[in-house]
Amino acid sequence: MKIARFMLGLEETWGVILGDSIHAISGIPYNIKNVGDRICSLSDITLLAPLTLTNKVPAIAANYGEKDDRDGPGIFMKQPGTYASHQGNIVYPRSCKSVIHEAEVGVVISKTARHISESDAMDYVMGYTCVNDVSAKETVESDLGKGLSMRWKHFDTFCPIGPHIETEIDDPGNLKIECFVNGELSAGGNTSEMIFAIPKLISWVSEVMTLQPGDIIPTGCPETAEINIGDVVEVRIEGIGSLINNVIEDY
Amino acid sequence: MKIARFMLGLEETWGVILGDSIHAISGIPYNIKNVGDRICSLSDITLLAPLTLTNKVPAIAANYGEKDDRDGPGIFMKQPGTYASHQGNIVYPRSCKSVIHEAEVGVVISKTARHISESDAMDYVMGYTCVNDVSAKETVESDLGKGLSMRWKHFDTFCPIGPHIETEIDDPGNLKIECFVNGELSAGGNTSEMIFAIPKLISWVSEVMTLQPGDIIPTGCPETAEINIGDVVEVRIEGIGSLINNVIEDY
Repeated sequence: MKIARFMLGLEETWGVILGDSIHAISGIPYNIKNVGDRICSLSDITLLAPLTLTNKVPAIAANYGEKDDRDGPGIFMKQPGTYASHQGNIVYPRSCKSVIHEAEVGVVISKTARHISESDAMDYVMGYTCVNDVSAKETVESDLGKGLSMRWKHFDTFCPIGPHIETEIDDPGNLKIECFVNGELSAGGNTSEMIFAIPKLISWVSEVMTLQPGDIIPTGCPETAEINIGDVVEVRIEGIGSLINNVIEDY
Repeated sequence: MKIARFMLGLEETWGVILGDSIHAISGIPYNIKNVGDRICSLSDITLLAPLTLTNKVPAIAANYGEKDDRDGPGIFMKQPGTYASHQGNIVYPRSCKSVIHEAEVGVVISKTARHISESDAMDYVMGYTCVNDVSAKETVESDLGKGLSMRWKHFDTFCPIGPHIETEIDDPGNLKIECFVNGELSAGGNTSEMIFAIPKLISWVSEVMTLQPGDIIPTGCPETAEINIGDVVEVRIEGIGSLINNVIEDY
């Protein structure tokens, strides 16, 4: 099932995508009871990022590449102003000289999760979505004279999510991830290459913070590449779909 | 004026503290028109952290101590589950071996702020509050094999804020900060020792993310000390007040 958040008139609401239509749902989207009437054609609405502003996005750092002796991966937060929708804009900050895309699978949480074991973790998954954990890499260096900084991850619009939540994924541990810039393949990988697999990530994050329904965990990025003003960036994940965004000048 | 958020019956609401009473306010708390009737005695209500779950807390890293050649300080987010109230609990995570307090002045934003210059920054301040940027220091090392992690800053209850917002501070650049553990002075400093002063911090953060009314910027910590289960921790800031919390065992 493809669950979407979209503008219906002036209101933000949830629906289910069936073919080229959006249908009403009853119940909160994390516990759908019935797919209701057709509301309208998919082409007539604007999709939103499939979460609310009270939802958290704890992102996983460095979950691909060489293994080492860590107990678990790094965690950092994407702030609510970073959430951007499918077909929305990524604003290239006027203070940045280098910005990269990071195509990632996002795990969507279905119910309150705290101190969850790896073996129970998959019971807390509602579905999966595409995430672009956009990052302004060069600012890491300039802030790191003392202490740590996640400034490079926090710029507004630096977390496109969508286009929808896919609830039917047979094996989230074996999904092809691709990123395209202006139609050219710029990065790729497979979730089978994760250092820490999805059950471990959910357990690890739930040991730190209580996850709420609708929270989304971006699971780390296999490969990155630079993006620039004017580019069209597509995160394409097998079985989920394509998240497409335009990179625009700061204003 | 002391602005507080508290439980009125089952509802979260805003009020103004006058003496030992809470008064109703009309208008949003970032733009108070009138202090209304007395609601009840301060001793009869439970204070909440003075912000909502949609508010952001972008915290400043390493803003005291030695200057270097950075353009500005680090920024990281405190996630909404960290917000704790005055007299509330700090939960000592079962996965941690060392937890520290960080007593800081929190700057409360009054109106939407984006790309704000240093010279305009103080027009966007509603007031100041006490923040305890609690941190599980030893987890930094275990996560840093690859990439960066802010896991140590993200544990639930790791950001007590309060007890209220003080709108009348003559010179926020000269406030004594003290922290007490079980009544003994454990750390101290003065906001005059900041590497980057408050106008620079607001400007710097607003260059990264759009600040909304009620967002709070913790401005960095002059000195830290360990806290343990059973401790009572007090952040005391000149002209603002005392934020007191109990450290309890994980559950």
